[in-house]
Amino acid sequence: MQFNPTLDSIKTYEAGKPIELVVREYGIKPQNVIKLASNENPFGASPKVIEAIAKEAVNAHRYPDDSMFELKEGLAGRFGVKSENVIIGSGSDQILEMAVHAKCNASSKVLMSKTTFAMYEVYSRQVGARILRTPSDQHHLGEFWEIYQKERPEILFLCLPNNPLGECLDREEVYDFLQKIDDETLVIVDGAYQEYAAFKDSQKRIDPKDLIERFPNSIFLGTFSKAFGLGGMRVGYGIAQPSIIQALMKMRAPFNITTLSLKAAIEALKESAYVEETIKENFKEMRRYEEFALAQGIDFIPSYTNFITLLLKNRVDSSEFSQWLLERGLIVRNLKSYGINAIRITIGRSLENDRCFELMQEYLHQF
Amino acid sequence: MQFNPTLDSIKTYEAGKPIELVVREYGIKPQNVIKLASNENPFGASPKVIEAIAKEAVNAHRYPDDSMFELKEGLAGRFGVKSENVIIGSGSDQILEMAVHAKCNASSKVLMSKTTFAMYEVYSRQVGARILRTPSDQHHLGEFWEIYQKERPEILFLCLPNNPLGECLDREEVYDFLQKIDDETLVIVDGAYQEYAAFKDSQKRIDPKDLIERFPNSIFLGTFSKAFGLGGMRVGYGIAQPSIIQALMKMRAPFNITTLSLKAAIEALKESAYVEETIKENFKEMRRYEEFALAQGIDFIPSYTNFITLLLKNRVDSSEFSQWLLERGLIVRNLKSYGINAIRITIGRSLENDRCFELMQEYLHQF
Repeated sequence: MQFNPTLDSIKTYEAGKPIELVVREYGIKPQNVIKLASNENPFGASPKVIEAIAKEAVNAHRYPDDSMFELKEGLAGRFGVKSENVIIGSGSDQILEMAVHAKCNASSKVLMSKTTFAMYEVYSRQVGARILRTPSDQHHLGEFWEIYQKERPEILFLCLPNNPLGECLDREEVYDFLQKIDDETLVIVDGAYQEYAAFKDSQKRIDPKDLIERFPNSIFLGTFSKAFGLGGMRVGYGIAQPSIIQALMKMRAPFNITTLSLKAAIEALKESAYVEETIKENFKEMRRYEEFALAQGIDFIPSYTNFITLLLKNRVDSSEFSQWLLERGLIVRNLKSYGINAIRITIGRSLENDRCFELMQEYLHQF
Repeated sequence: MQFNPTLDSIKTYEAGKPIELVVREYGIKPQNVIKLASNENPFGASPKVIEAIAKEAVNAHRYPDDSMFELKEGLAGRFGVKSENVIIGSGSDQILEMAVHAKCNASSKVLMSKTTFAMYEVYSRQVGARILRTPSDQHHLGEFWEIYQKERPEILFLCLPNNPLGECLDREEVYDFLQKIDDETLVIVDGAYQEYAAFKDSQKRIDPKDLIERFPNSIFLGTFSKAFGLGGMRVGYGIAQPSIIQALMKMRAPFNITTLSLKAAIEALKESAYVEETIKENFKEMRRYEEFALAQGIDFIPSYTNFITLLLKNRVDSSEFSQWLLERGLIVRNLKSYGINAIRITIGRSLENDRCFELMQEYLHQF
């Protein structure tokens, strides 16, 4: 059967390997598998949030409040905007999908950094849009501007900080750049890891209210999947001017998050102190990864997130390295599919990181 | 900002009103609100499933196994197909979205019954496809065939049984009809309420394996939202030939259901006995609605689902009626937006139905 020809060029996204797969394929006990591959918060959601979710299980048969009134009010309060500035998605991922599908078609172009979140490309290809990328792996606004001027893409993707590399542009340089961008270009500021970046360096912090007031053609994306420890619940949000929110709402399916996810996100907003504690711990542990890399003579990208990317260059092959670790129950993310010989490691809990160092050392010692 | 012009014609889907809204707007206590509006299973999920969900809450931070290996195996086992015949969606709704977006574009046409599930139209409009509808409210294959021959639409939607009306075509007439349909037309058999229809009348039962073997251009959609009592968890599935599944997979976002939803669905498949009990109870209670309608001289459509549609004709206005009920804490579905003066009532638990009869009688008594 024939489908839209735009589908031909889409490669299915390769998600981080789940623990279940390692159990199935290598016969390792679940409790012996360490997953540092998908940038989940290794400390989990706050105990209060977990309790709220468990209590809500009796309502599994009830559809959620599709207006998402309480969650939108909560987010509006947090960011000093109005409910009408907020849209909820099944992860911020789904808001990317709505935005690209609402704005682009087969005659559109989109612009992104060479190595950035893979789904920007997938959603764009789904509607047949042409993908433009900067030459440098990391975000480089000079390169963005050069291509922008020539090509006038419909959408600009800025991943701040950037997944899967971890670098982050300063707010002021982003603002200077956005002043030059046409009102008709939709600027997507993907802030999935903003809580981490803002904690480490206030110059990286993008305030959604400030952003959309200065640049009404922009949308800020945030998520409960990372710092808030709710990756498995699939809740993200977009903050933008009402006209953009209304357009995206036309692409939104009803009941796009679960009843339990709605509850979890509402409760999670009350747990900022817990979240901040886990962020602190993240950067304490990250220091250990940096020291490990320095000791091993391995390059890394200074990271503003909850992961670190090790650049393996000619030292070892990232596919062989990550496979070797996988067979020993440690899941990390091989970045070979992004075209770089590197691995991305989520910063885990202290004991998980101990084991990670131990295994990496054992492997690297051979080379 | 300009978005795709296809968006201009989309009206946002009006979901059934949630209990929270009645609490907020009419100051009624949550425990006094009865929701018979969204065709949830009023008995909820099985206790074992609820327990499994609550236990899984500690893994809220972990992304689900994106291969959905275990759930696909479970569904494949249930239906006698292979895992490669199965795709999982956030409700069967999301599989509709993937199918329409994969198959259609601005030059496509889709064909459906005049009064059927509203999202068929929304997803089709999102890609700019032209909507064709039969003249009759209820499914009428003669009318489908007449329009099909003339227009050759890319997609045919058959809702078996049909939401929001409740009628259901016989399997044999559907099969006779599908024999005449071109291989290049995607036939979507929406079986969201099939468990109910199959229980009431075996002639309505569509076996997914049989369907896709006879008609490789078809996809069967099923859901955990209705009979399985997991509406709030958002899990549905599609069963089709691998080539169709592979095309739809290109439109699927990673992690499109939650970690807890995956667990819930896997467990729910083991609870067939519980589900069957609730279906039995559903039709026992439905008999009471039929008797009520007969006693009141109100027409209804014989229903093969867990809801009943009362045709109000010139008796009362469905908007006024449903609003009056709403203000007294009873939520039913007004079908005015579908262009008919009718209300759709989900069959509730016995005490809920008692209250529903009491209120309806009080209102109808005035006319």
